[in-house]
Amino acid sequence: MARLRTVIGPSGRTAVQVIHIPVRLADRQTGAVNLVTLDDIRAAAGRIARGATRTPLLTCLWSDPDRPLWLKPENLQPIGAFKIRGAYNAIARLTDEQRARGVVAYSSGNHAQAVAYVAKLFGAPAWIVVPEDTPQVKIDATRSHGAEVILSGVGQREVVANEIVQDKGAALIPPFDHPDVIAGQGTIGLEIIEDLPDVDLVLVPVSGGGLISGVAAAIKALRPATQVWAVEPELAADTAASLAAGELVSWSVEDRNRTIADGLRSQPSPLTFAHQKAFVDGIVTVSEDEIRATVADLAHKSNLVAEPSGAVATAGYLYRADELPRGRTVAVVSGGNVDQTLLAELL
Amino acid sequence: MARLRTVIGPSGRTAVQVIHIPVRLADRQTGAVNLVTLDDIRAAAGRIARGATRTPLLTCLWSDPDRPLWLKPENLQPIGAFKIRGAYNAIARLTDEQRARGVVAYSSGNHAQAVAYVAKLFGAPAWIVVPEDTPQVKIDATRSHGAEVILSGVGQREVVANEIVQDKGAALIPPFDHPDVIAGQGTIGLEIIEDLPDVDLVLVPVSGGGLISGVAAAIKALRPATQVWAVEPELAADTAASLAAGELVSWSVEDRNRTIADGLRSQPSPLTFAHQKAFVDGIVTVSEDEIRATVADLAHKSNLVAEPSGAVATAGYLYRADELPRGRTVAVVSGGNVDQTLLAELL
Repeated sequence: MARLRTVIGPSGRTAVQVIHIPVRLADRQTGAVNLVTLDDIRAAAGRIARGATRTPLLTCLWSDPDRPLWLKPENLQPIGAFKIRGAYNAIARLTDEQRARGVVAYSSGNHAQAVAYVAKLFGAPAWIVVPEDTPQVKIDATRSHGAEVILSGVGQREVVANEIVQDKGAALIPPFDHPDVIAGQGTIGLEIIEDLPDVDLVLVPVSGGGLISGVAAAIKALRPATQVWAVEPELAADTAASLAAGELVSWSVEDRNRTIADGLRSQPSPLTFAHQKAFVDGIVTVSEDEIRATVADLAHKSNLVAEPSGAVATAGYLYRADELPRGRTVAVVSGGNVDQTLLAELL
Repeated sequence: MARLRTVIGPSGRTAVQVIHIPVRLADRQTGAVNLVTLDDIRAAAGRIARGATRTPLLTCLWSDPDRPLWLKPENLQPIGAFKIRGAYNAIARLTDEQRARGVVAYSSGNHAQAVAYVAKLFGAPAWIVVPEDTPQVKIDATRSHGAEVILSGVGQREVVANEIVQDKGAALIPPFDHPDVIAGQGTIGLEIIEDLPDVDLVLVPVSGGGLISGVAAAIKALRPATQVWAVEPELAADTAASLAAGELVSWSVEDRNRTIADGLRSQPSPLTFAHQKAFVDGIVTVSEDEIRATVADLAHKSNLVAEPSGAVATAGYLYRADELPRGRTVAVVSGGNVDQTLLAELL
């Protein structure tokens, strides 16, 4: 499906360019894995319109005229991140009976907010399993949407969540490893092509890979000539390592947790990695200092508050120009839920 | 056209409720002043689509459920403020010959950026007259759009601008006192009704009055039951005083310059005041501390960087609930061009 070329960038950074055999509709089946289709994503767009905001593309007058930049500000979604799209699509796809029994998620971050908020919109009970050391402010935010928050010990989140699935008959809404979640995130790709049909390059942050899987599936179906590149923190570059190896490479939780981009500490599943191998053109990594500086730039130059994870794609634009294709570029600003003290420190 | 009731709020704040005789199309002519019509605003919307961003309404999960709030984030426009709409419409309405001779504006703020940027889009020369004490950063921003910046002495801006009009045959683009500018700003009202047809209350910052004139003209034509209220800094409350008096009341420049909301230090013209008397339902004022706190709230809760002037309408929502109509509310976040040091201080 894809050949890989590894490029060693300055200061030892790894840039991986995925050299595709052109994607054709017939290539959509990758072995046993069913990839999300354009029809899936279009159906998701119809569903989520009642809950998610149709974000515009924002012109960046401060960008390089040779490769003009637009931002896709998903930090402006109701819960402050793109995660509402996938959660909404997944919960909307449940039957009335399933929703009446409720939904479960294990997350302390934006996915937790998204599932709790969307469950409230549908009038469904929600249980959110979070680690014991989750900051009280995040617990309060999740409870504010009416969800029940369940604390769990280290490494016990999945076990506790599965107990609730068994006990209550509730539906588990995974953060990225599900076709309905991927299709929901893919609506961002539809909107980008709708607003800027001749876009040359789309930059997407990568972690679990639900976002880039959906966005790339949509864009490659609508406009194969548009390049879709992932951007990842150097300190959590398991996806770059996996794409270079051509197979999933695991990094330890401790390694991945070093990055300030706390939304990008997951790693791909076989499902999202299959999408990336099929649809993603390349990946670059960015440093912690570059991520921090980009949070400040987004606030000062584009009036957007981004969390570090949300600034990563724009950091790729700013600091990896030599490794990226040129032309009309869109960077997805994936979220804005940053601690107030950290924001003040970064500005 | 309108009767006025003055309400003395807590701590001596003045809230003025304008009790209308219902606005009818036949009332659109106010003496000798031609008010901007819905057709003017619709025509402007067709023109500005090539230059201005179609901003969405942003859901605020942190708002009072009894009066849910949406934000209209005009701080996300290419030059960081709504002013691009009026400037674009006014410059688009010129003939090719007029544009070839160029455009002139006197402003050191967002209107200067808007005229310089739009002139560049049209390939027209632009001269921007600014006071001698304008910060270098603002001069540089204006020059970055290719405009020629002309420094003038205190109180000499209009004289210098008119000299350029005479010498070059250039067209003066006023910041608010022109029907084409008002019609351009009014496109915000069209978009609000399109996105939220059953909105009960729209809050708009007021100063020269171009923004609220256009927004209120659009909304009253499309949905007369929607209330449009102005919000003004207490320290530059000449519009509140004028609406209470039923005629233009002038405050000194020194008085108006006390507010931190540096985009709201102008006062209405007979043209914009006539629109306000015809279409605006009331006005509340907010304190400096309330404006400052709202800049922080918009960043922390809605991921938007607003300048103090841009936070004023939302401050009205947050701090004048008792004086405002209830129901589904939209606040216009008019701009985000805030000095980096001030932003860091406010967060």
